[in-house]
Amino acid sequence: MSGARSRGRRPGGPDTRGQILASARRSFAEKGFGGTTIRAVAVDAGVDPALVHHYFGAKDDLFLAALEFPADPRALLPTVFEAGTDGAGERLLRLFVSVWDDPHARLAMVAVFRTGLQEAEDSLLRQGILRLVQRPLRAALPDAEADRRVQLVISQMVGLVVTRYVLVLEPLASMPADDLVAWVGPTLQRYLNGPLPDGR
Amino acid sequence: MSGARSRGRRPGGPDTRGQILASARRSFAEKGFGGTTIRAVAVDAGVDPALVHHYFGAKDDLFLAALEFPADPRALLPTVFEAGTDGAGERLLRLFVSVWDDPHARLAMVAVFRTGLQEAEDSLLRQGILRLVQRPLRAALPDAEADRRVQLVISQMVGLVVTRYVLVLEPLASMPADDLVAWVGPTLQRYLNGPLPDGR
Repeated sequence: MSGARSRGRRPGGPDTRGQILASARRSFAEKGFGGTTIRAVAVDAGVDPALVHHYFGAKDDLFLAALEFPADPRALLPTVFEAGTDGAGERLLRLFVSVWDDPHARLAMVAVFRTGLQEAEDSLLRQGILRLVQRPLRAALPDAEADRRVQLVISQMVGLVVTRYVLVLEPLASMPADDLVAWVGPTLQRYLNGPLPDGR
Repeated sequence: MSGARSRGRRPGGPDTRGQILASARRSFAEKGFGGTTIRAVAVDAGVDPALVHHYFGAKDDLFLAALEFPADPRALLPTVFEAGTDGAGERLLRLFVSVWDDPHARLAMVAVFRTGLQEAEDSLLRQGILRLVQRPLRAALPDAEADRRVQLVISQMVGLVVTRYVLVLEPLASMPADDLVAWVGPTLQRYLNGPLPDGR
């Protein structure tokens, strides 16, 4: 039968990895983050689910690989806080800019932002990227206000993504990284561990 | 001919205004801001261009009316600076929240943000909304760094729009307006007239 070559469950061949990634990309795009399962991706790629786990680990890992993310926020964000919360605003922004300022590296992420505001409930942006950024930030802040602090940080970073990298608004888009860090770093620092506003 | 009823140039009738708005909405959605002209909207609505001007004024006015914007940034933003730049960050944020916190009023604006990141060059977001916000802010700041200051302000406001109103991320989405103003007001104030970072 004509489908036998591509439909049977195959052991890991030279293009198996690429085929899994193509299936994963299709699934994330069509079904969102919540609607994608390792099992369904495996079926679509014609391989055993164990092989997907073997190559890519858990769903979060498959997501980062399928969207060709240049950096894993779960690994990088904790390094920002290794030396403590003081100065973390500037270090966080420097990391953010170093990833996003690379035009090639940001391609896939810009695509997620361009389409990610359309879906109401289960976008790759909310369930994928923002969750993977929010969790390690939250873990670094013991404060009772940590959830709010983290989302304020994310609000400023998302705003920079949209204005500097997606809409490419000038003069913000071509502001040198050092200037951007000097202007916005103190904002993130205040959100991270500044004193609570009066009466909050 | 069957088209005679709707195609001929008619004087202003009871539904003329609504017909012009419908044509304008269609044009802005399909052709973007730059691709929309008063003349083409008039032709589509079957009226004289002078009638469009008579009802709605210039293209910016037609844009605000067609998208059912609850507020005209050209009229409101200057009031923020009437008492000077000190305190303008808090006043600006309070104005912003008062407009956006109304679930009905923000419907059309959320729609523009949801789709506005998809187009590369001529989105309603960039040419429409952001330009109408940027210009009066720019006019209020005499500083040589005003262009950067304004875009930093816009970056934080756009980030709040996306996280609080479009993605509805909790706990940010349900943070009381007073808390939000207390947290983010100082950020806008520093962008507006804070000292330049060292060496910038």
